[in-house]
Formats: sequence, structure tokens, C-alpha cells
Amino acid sequence: MTDQPPATLAGLGEFGVVGLITRGLPLGADVRVGPGDDAAVLAPGASDLVVTTDTMVEGVHFKRDWSSGLETGRKAVAAAAADVEAMGGRPWALVVSLSAPADLPVTWLRFFRQGVLQECELAGAQLVGGDTTRSRDVVVGVTVLGRLDGPAVTRAGARPGDVVAVRGRLGWAAAGLAVLGRGFRSPRAAVAAQLAPEVPWGAGEEARAAGATAMIDVSDGLLADLGHVCAASGVAIDLDSAAFEVPDVLQTVAAATGGDPLRLVLTGGEDHALAATFAEADVPAGWRVVGRVVTPPEADTRVTVDGREWEGVGGHDHFGA
Amino acid sequence: MTDQPPATLAGLGEFGVVGLITRGLPLGADVRVGPGDDAAVLAPGASDLVVTTDTMVEGVHFKRDWSSGLETGRKAVAAAAADVEAMGGRPWALVVSLSAPADLPVTWLRFFRQGVLQECELAGAQLVGGDTTRSRDVVVGVTVLGRLDGPAVTRAGARPGDVVAVRGRLGWAAAGLAVLGRGFRSPRAAVAAQLAPEVPWGAGEEARAAGATAMIDVSDGLLADLGHVCAASGVAIDLDSAAFEVPDVLQTVAAATGGDPLRLVLTGGEDHALAATFAEADVPAGWRVVGRVVTPPEADTRVTVDGREWEGVGGHDHFGA
Repeated sequence: MTDQPPATLAGLGEFGVVGLITRGLPLGADVRVGPGDDAAVLAPGASDLVVTTDTMVEGVHFKRDWSSGLETGRKAVAAAAADVEAMGGRPWALVVSLSAPADLPVTWLRFFRQGVLQECELAGAQLVGGDTTRSRDVVVGVTVLGRLDGPAVTRAGARPGDVVAVRGRLGWAAAGLAVLGRGFRSPRAAVAAQLAPEVPWGAGEEARAAGATAMIDVSDGLLADLGHVCAASGVAIDLDSAAFEVPDVLQTVAAATGGDPLRLVLTGGEDHALAATFAEADVPAGWRVVGRVVTPPEADTRVTVDGREWEGVGGHDHFGA
Repeated sequence: MTDQPPATLAGLGEFGVVGLITRGLPLGADVRVGPGDDAAVLAPGASDLVVTTDTMVEGVHFKRDWSSGLETGRKAVAAAAADVEAMGGRPWALVVSLSAPADLPVTWLRFFRQGVLQECELAGAQLVGGDTTRSRDVVVGVTVLGRLDGPAVTRAGARPGDVVAVRGRLGWAAAGLAVLGRGFRSPRAAVAAQLAPEVPWGAGEEARAAGATAMIDVSDGLLADLGHVCAASGVAIDLDSAAFEVPDVLQTVAAATGGDPLRLVLTGGEDHALAATFAEADVPAGWRVVGRVVTPPEADTRVTVDGREWEGVGGHDHFGA
């Protein structure tokens, strides 16, 4: 034994890991029992409750070669809490499960905690509990509770005549992945977007209050995710390619990788933008109208671009079928 | 392509996996939006909300050689929901995250679903959502929401003079593990207890209503878990070895493995019995009084047996420190 602080989770031990993560957490007055007991206890108030869970697996969703602990923590919270926004709710409280190998550096854990708390602060949520265990690969599970002060905005309410609007980034994370996959680390804005998204926090409740008829968060790519809205609502959607902003960083990446910047925008996932449908007069400021909900010909509930089918809509199937 | 139904998750695909698990779920009137959208939406009512998460990793918490999908699903739900009981609450709604290799048999998944739903029914909870992704090892994360109609029973309220009482099994799961570890599959009652515990559902709320001053679920072993109560409450506990029931199955396993049946009772985890402290007159029927809360000498908040320290209290450290 030396006086050195432990360098890995094995040295820290299970209670040390929990202690490092939970020490000094900022907790609201609505948390009756915080971390450290068998479970957390919250005062829910009068709002409805939104519940969603999301899991990130090392080697599937992130690589420790690419992502720091901070980015991993930020991305895990962002991906889960964005689903609360997509129902029109506000992220409120979350529990985190961390499975990790015993040789994981304590430094990684410290940065992971920092990333979780940073994204919690951005999202307006608080960490109230969790669980930690050993595993071969790092697996991060985040369950988020949200508050919802009105009817949920599901995927099923889009009506022909509504417009389709988006808020947040599209294609940035996919551009970052294209860059990283070729062994580069720039443009840094694209790489940063892949490692931890910039979610338009607050936009989900804003859309609900404005009267959004359907909403989804863009995790698999705009075309794929709007496809879910079409299927749930029994409608079709036609997007206007000229309505999209294609930022310089996507032009740069597309030029460098031989890709199409519009393809990044339409099919790139992991940015957790929000896409919603509104009556035309209801679109809030800051949302970009990019298409229109139409009556599908013969129940063919699909998404078109400029009236034509887009090749290779994609969407990611984790089991590879 | 053939007309054969897919044999593995790869053939089923991500949406097929989600569809198989979520199709036809029984949902209460308090579920406003069930599985299939970005998140579930629940009407919380007037109760306080209990939140807890628990993760089981293949090769760490279970082996697919030993546990069927049904047992894995049952155990994952039981281990998580027992923490709601331990606060004095009632399990209400849960989300499940399943990470699994693409070659996992669909049959395993069907049994897993059945196990999750069986244990949900026993616990009085409903499955409202989840997430699935690919991974090398099967990792099951369960987050449970509970309802709590009164002050939470934490670990911190035990008072000198209280009695310590337990409800549920002690040592059965550890006995099963000892058997399985030697390559045997009997006594079957012990093996079954290791593969999926029999949680005393409803006993947590019963203890709270009766005035329990502190409570914990026995996941790491009675001595280790009562140690947490002692530390949180600033007390010591002395157990009476003669007060424990040592069932025949533990005698059998101890005789066959050269172990001590009382050691199984005092240090065996994973049965998710409840241990609580009460004023002596408040102990509900069905609870067994096994010890007493005492004032610790010199802040030495530890658990003794018949007035003496028990060697090797144990408790399981997942990171092996």
C-alpha cells in the first residue's frame, strides 16, 4: 500500500465509485431522499410524468479512444433527456447506471461525473441516484423523468396541411463520425458534435405550448424519424430540400469525404434536434419550416424530398438486420 | 430467405425486438402514453415517487448457462423493485433496457419478456417502456418507479431499543450459488432461489404502515446490509443467532458443501428479503425478530452476533477492492 490515490475503479471499490459520483450533488427541494439509500424519493407535484431510458455501449455508441469521460457523460444524458423534450416535457430528475471494467481509470470516472452534471444543468435536470457494477465494456444507462404540463405531443397527431419544422442541428454528428472514421480530428465543431450533441433544451416544451401536433427527436436521422411520425399519424411528409440550412462545416466535411452535405442533413442521426408538425400559423420563432404534411396516396405513409423518394433513407438497426 | 421465423435478434431486427417485447402489454389507466413513442407518460397521482435503478451483467450477475431468459427477466425486475419496497413504497411502473449480442436467440427474448411480466405482476408493477441495443454481453437495466403514501423509511432512523426484524428468505440464493458453482443443479429450491428470488412483495409498505424506523433490502447479505443501517443511523445492532430459522434446504447444502448454514443466513445475498427496525410493539405479523438496536460503544457502528464480532462479514464489491 502507498499513499497514492487509487488509479482505477478496482482501487476505488464499489462504494468509492458511488461516493465519488454522488458527493455534493446539487438537489432541489423536490428531492425528499437523494442518493445513498435504497432508492431516491421525489415529490412529483401536479405535472404528468414522462419516463424514458437510453443505453450507450462502448464499441457500439462510443469509443474511449475518441470520447473522453466528460463527453460520454454528456452524450448519455443528452440522448436520454432529449426524449423528454420530444414529448413536450421538461427534464426533471435522472438516475444513471454505470457498468465498467475494474481497470477503468478513476480520471475517466471524474470526467464522466462532470459531463453528466454539465448536461444535467443544461437540460434543467438533477441526478438523484444510480447504480454501478463491473462489466467487460463500459455501458451507461440513463433513465430520465420529466414533467409535462399539458397533453403529451406524441408521434401520432400530424395532420395533412400541417407544416414540418425543425429546431437544432442536423447532420453535424454524422459529419463528425465521418471525420473520425477516417482518422481525423477536424473540423473540430463536427467532431465535438459527434462526441456530445448540442440539444435545443427547452424547445420541446416551447413546441407543445405553441400547439405542436406531433413531435420526435432526431436520433436516427430526419428522414427515418419523420417516417415514424408518418406511420404513427397515418400521413405522408414532403420535405423541401431548399429550405434546409447547410452550414459551412457540413460543406467542408462533405467535400473532404466525397459525400453529399444534404445527405448528412437528411439522414445523419445523433444530433437530437427536434422535429415537429404545426398548423402553419403556430410555428414558434427559432424553428425552421422544412416541409409539409400531406395525405398519403393509398396509405403510403412515407417521407419524400421535393416530391421524390430519397434513396437510402437509412436509420440505424442495432441488430444489423 | 425462407419462411422460417428469425432465430436470433439479428434476424428480428431492432424494431422486431421492441415489438416482441411491447406487444399487448397490460397497461393501467394511469398510463397516458405507453411504449412506442419517444417516452412513456404517466399520471403520478398524489403519492410521492420512489426511483431506483439496477443493472445485471452477464458473466457478473448471471450466466446464460445457468439462467433461462425467464429467470433473468424475473431476477432483474425483482432486484430493482425490491428497492422500492425497502423505502416503504409500492412498485408501480418500470422501464427495461436490454443490451444483447445479435446472435441472442429469439427464444431467450420471448422467455425474458415472460419473466419480466411475471415478476411485474407479482410486484404489482407495469412495464411502460424501454430501450434495446447491441452489446457483447447481455446487460439488463431496470428502473422502477414506486408510489409512497407517507414518509420514506430510510436507513437512518434506527434507534437504540428498537428490535430488528426480517421478512423473506435469507441464504437461499447463496446456497443455490454454492451448488451451481460445484456443477450441481439440486437442491432445486436453492438453485431456483439463486436464479430468481422470491421477494416478499407488499412487506415494505406493510412495515412502513406499522411504523418501521429504518429499512433495507438484503441484497449483499444481512450483516453487510444491516451495517449500512448502523452507519446511517449511528447505532449498533446485535443479532441473536438462535432467533433465525435455518431451513432444511440450507442444512442440506451446508452439509454437502462443507459450509455453515448460519453463515449462509447471515452473509448470503440476492434473496431480497427486507430487514427493518421497529419499536418492539410495532412488529407486524409475519416478520421475525432477530436482534436489537443498541447504543454503539465509542461510535463503533457495527453488527455483532450474540455479542461478538462475526468473522468475514463480507458484502460484495463489484470492483474487487
